[in-house]
Amino acid sequence: MSNPELSRFSINQMTVKQLSLPELVDACLESGVPGVGLWREPVQSYGLEATAKLVRDAGLTVTTLCRGGFFTAIDPAERAEALADNRRAIDEAATLGTDTLVLVSGGLPAGSKDLHGARERIAEALAELGPYAESHGVRLAIEPLHPMYASDRCVVSTLTQALDLAERFPAHQVGVTVDTYHIWWDDTAPEQIARAGAGGRIHTFQLADWTTPLPQGVLTGRGQIGDGSIDMREWKGYVEAAGYTGAIEVELFNDELWARDGREVLAETAQRFVQNVVR
Amino acid sequence: MSNPELSRFSINQMTVKQLSLPELVDACLESGVPGVGLWREPVQSYGLEATAKLVRDAGLTVTTLCRGGFFTAIDPAERAEALADNRRAIDEAATLGTDTLVLVSGGLPAGSKDLHGARERIAEALAELGPYAESHGVRLAIEPLHPMYASDRCVVSTLTQALDLAERFPAHQVGVTVDTYHIWWDDTAPEQIARAGAGGRIHTFQLADWTTPLPQGVLTGRGQIGDGSIDMREWKGYVEAAGYTGAIEVELFNDELWARDGREVLAETAQRFVQNVVR
Repeated sequence: MSNPELSRFSINQMTVKQLSLPELVDACLESGVPGVGLWREPVQSYGLEATAKLVRDAGLTVTTLCRGGFFTAIDPAERAEALADNRRAIDEAATLGTDTLVLVSGGLPAGSKDLHGARERIAEALAELGPYAESHGVRLAIEPLHPMYASDRCVVSTLTQALDLAERFPAHQVGVTVDTYHIWWDDTAPEQIARAGAGGRIHTFQLADWTTPLPQGVLTGRGQIGDGSIDMREWKGYVEAAGYTGAIEVELFNDELWARDGREVLAETAQRFVQNVVR
Repeated sequence: MSNPELSRFSINQMTVKQLSLPELVDACLESGVPGVGLWREPVQSYGLEATAKLVRDAGLTVTTLCRGGFFTAIDPAERAEALADNRRAIDEAATLGTDTLVLVSGGLPAGSKDLHGARERIAEALAELGPYAESHGVRLAIEPLHPMYASDRCVVSTLTQALDLAERFPAHQVGVTVDTYHIWWDDTAPEQIARAGAGGRIHTFQLADWTTPLPQGVLTGRGQIGDGSIDMREWKGYVEAAGYTGAIEVELFNDELWARDGREVLAETAQRFVQNVVR
């Protein structure tokens, strides 16, 4: 069934990771969800070609593939392996028919306190991967992660930093991921969204709400849309004013949602999207 | 005993909250620690005048009082109570002989998603409290808290935001707290420290290290100096280049440190300060 209010909605696979890929596809068709953001590990488990056929046959759009990145290693062998793995991720994105690979850039290597050096190593990796991605019709989307992940997951903490990196390369090679969860606190983010839009670098727009208390490890506490502190319409307004007309992906990592029935969570998420983003 | 390498060191009371005030003072004298940052609640429990006499007789400098703030309520009665409580905090700071009251400005009121409005209410409170603080010889030090506290503790997340607020008032009324734990990830912070220093607004400089994984609630995971990702010498260099010559306070909230013998933790912290900050 088609629902015009869901025309831009995409469900990130991680939001309902309890669903197998066939279950996810069925649930999308059932709820009228037209897009999915996929993750490499479950795709590899199900089979890359099989996944590509499954979603293509169902008429679903693959809005992004998550994720490449982890570019901050110093050790040459580790760096070479990271680059090789990112080339494989680009290949997978192309096979799945998505034009966007989301990048989580990596944290500080063990024992290092050098954020600047780590950011420069990201730039070096992008210089190698950008042309490869372009030749496969895939754009790299640097995701600034919330500053609470700066040491262990991603030294790129703001849209400003992400764009400072991305703008060293052509926009059709490298842009950014705008995710409300990571940037909602930042009063400079709206102007950076405008900067990103003017450069054609908003490669994907993702939503999660901010709820507290944060869980141990702070990875699995992303709130359902509408449950937290973020004004989703405001952020949608910023990306639209910047010219973004693409899919809006909801990506939640949330232990409580994962413990529930995945189809129910998908239907709820679509409903929350309509209530808090569309209307 | 006097140790020239500890001449600028101050121990924030919360780092060794397992110590009573007399125990804290004894431990400072024993370890050659010349300064303490105090907290209102334990001071009130021991008695304000009694605490003032205790630290004065011991020859300790009270580098700061923690903390005022929580200015973001919308309800008029709540706002009036917050202002009254902050006037009491200013009185207490003056009685204790410290010139600096640290402010944790407050998060979003329940149900609100309006960060900008909350920040404006902080400015309104500062306009009322600044002259009162000045008349008591106390400076207000807005502390930007890490963005992971933006919703529930402090909508002021960056030094830029703190200075944008502080600069509406005279520097001898309102300045900022520079705390490595909250700003270490921010590549714009060094230039903001220079801005703060040029305006005479670095009212205190505090240290804590960044360690992961963060604990549930993210309040009690501040790392011992040298255990984490922050280059303490680098940040000391920034505040010194900005003209700051005052005390350097170590403020750790850490369950593991609290479970240990407080005197031992104080001695260790002083040693870490010398190893990672002074030498």
